[in-house]
Amino acid sequence: MNSNPIYPPFTIGIDLGGTNTAFAVVDSVGHILAKDSIPTRTPSVEHWADTLASRISMMISNLDLDGHVEGIGIGAPCANAITGCIEAATNLPWPSPIPLVNMMESRLGLRTVISNDANAAAIGEMTYGAAAGLKNFIVLTLGTSVGGGIVCDGHLLSGTRGFAGELGHVTFPFASDRECSCGRKGCLHTVASAEGITMTAKKMLSESDAPSELREIPVEELTPKKVTQAANNGDRLAKHIYDFTGHCLGKAAAEFAAVTDPEAIILFGGVAKAGDLLLKPMREAFMANALFLYKDRVRFLLSKLDDADAAILGAASLPYL
Amino acid sequence: MNSNPIYPPFTIGIDLGGTNTAFAVVDSVGHILAKDSIPTRTPSVEHWADTLASRISMMISNLDLDGHVEGIGIGAPCANAITGCIEAATNLPWPSPIPLVNMMESRLGLRTVISNDANAAAIGEMTYGAAAGLKNFIVLTLGTSVGGGIVCDGHLLSGTRGFAGELGHVTFPFASDRECSCGRKGCLHTVASAEGITMTAKKMLSESDAPSELREIPVEELTPKKVTQAANNGDRLAKHIYDFTGHCLGKAAAEFAAVTDPEAIILFGGVAKAGDLLLKPMREAFMANALFLYKDRVRFLLSKLDDADAAILGAASLPYL
Repeated sequence: MNSNPIYPPFTIGIDLGGTNTAFAVVDSVGHILAKDSIPTRTPSVEHWADTLASRISMMISNLDLDGHVEGIGIGAPCANAITGCIEAATNLPWPSPIPLVNMMESRLGLRTVISNDANAAAIGEMTYGAAAGLKNFIVLTLGTSVGGGIVCDGHLLSGTRGFAGELGHVTFPFASDRECSCGRKGCLHTVASAEGITMTAKKMLSESDAPSELREIPVEELTPKKVTQAANNGDRLAKHIYDFTGHCLGKAAAEFAAVTDPEAIILFGGVAKAGDLLLKPMREAFMANALFLYKDRVRFLLSKLDDADAAILGAASLPYL
Repeated sequence: MNSNPIYPPFTIGIDLGGTNTAFAVVDSVGHILAKDSIPTRTPSVEHWADTLASRISMMISNLDLDGHVEGIGIGAPCANAITGCIEAATNLPWPSPIPLVNMMESRLGLRTVISNDANAAAIGEMTYGAAAGLKNFIVLTLGTSVGGGIVCDGHLLSGTRGFAGELGHVTFPFASDRECSCGRKGCLHTVASAEGITMTAKKMLSESDAPSELREIPVEELTPKKVTQAANNGDRLAKHIYDFTGHCLGKAAAEFAAVTDPEAIILFGGVAKAGDLLLKPMREAFMANALFLYKDRVRFLLSKLDDADAAILGAASLPYL
């Protein structure tokens, strides 16, 4: 246990990824008291759950917190909060659906809440991060994929089958020539995901002769991180890549604002590390495109969850739902 | 009082319009027990409120319902449920803001809830109409203006300042050449309002030589009602006008579905009287454009509130919020 003051109650956050399952005991303000991980690629889901449960029990005992843990939160792709199952997760080694809530509750006797990554991010920001005290906001997760978690009137939107907030698959004219992995064209995902930014970089590099340090990188090795580094070095073409991406995000935000009237839109995930490179053009495009009711009323923020632990913290916040 | 069975509890519904204020006592299943109206254009808002309160008191007494009325609901343009005020209503003769909730509660001692027309329509449909029993749906009000009322997870979305659900001002590429009264271009309002349909009619009439009975109507007298009549008479051009409008609504619905995962989208208001002329192309365009998660999962319905009383019923449902 670290030596900082700790604030009960405590929850367990579990970040179930395709390769590893990371988990931690977290206090009510987002301090991680202990953290560990196990491989996800075990022979069976039962074996995985047994191992995970016993390691969590041990962690709780080692911290002298038996009886003081309020619940378990699990963030995972395709986790459905309504059914309590993981449905059709192509990156997990076990057959779907996986009745994750039942599996953990029966092993640990602790209330378990699961959610997809974007919704966990939204509740994480509300509980410990940039949305503390906010009742109306949208988290856009910008990474391998683009997702959304919407809190409106203090409530995380779930929808009929738990599929509210699929903001990465709202389509926009600015991306109308880009094919999305969902089989449609023009999704926000195609410009604001890591792949989308790489695609914008390739396009801008091929369509101009402007000098850029990005030209020294083999095209198949381009990443948002490298574009950010170049932009921070003053590379104009790299900056234009984020100008375009931020502009698209700002126009998208103008449409989302008319649906849920948020007070803030928060960028989360690897791509969001571009920071002001994205936020500045995003704000400008929002101001140029939003209905008068929303102008000057929406703040654009970056996640305040510690990078390395953001997914675990999002998960740990779910029992507060 | 009519002779049908009546179902307590009772509420008062008030439809505050620019010319008249209609009000009624309504039972819990949407039967109107008594209805009346007063002019809105009185010398002062205090005078209007005094008259309205005394007429409502009288109506309650005449029905022998003193002590049996649960609350008052008022539907009005620009009514803000959060502040309890009407804000900047250009069609009312009094200075804004008007503290409507306070004014009625102090006069009648009954809890009062106000809301804009589209949100009142959504709660009206949930309480007495097409959304009975539904927890996730969107009402699109199609009339002089286009509005939206969104219920997600059983909760009417309000947003930071009560401006959630402004779906008439989400923009779409299919309307990108149309200027909206809000000063922007491409709003759903510009194709799906009464004015939008008239504009589509004028455009289609001028761009083709196809025969149509609409050509016999002076262009400035075209209305959605006349287009509906012509379409129902088999007029092909009139049908095309609704094909286009329904197609736009279906594409819009595909985007809205990704935000709140609704089980139904309900059309309400004068333009919705076109019925299947709109619903059929709307369904088709939704199926062609929605993300796979939502396909076959959203029902498209028409309002079930009686036309003449829809606004009063929407208002009367507000105390159930």
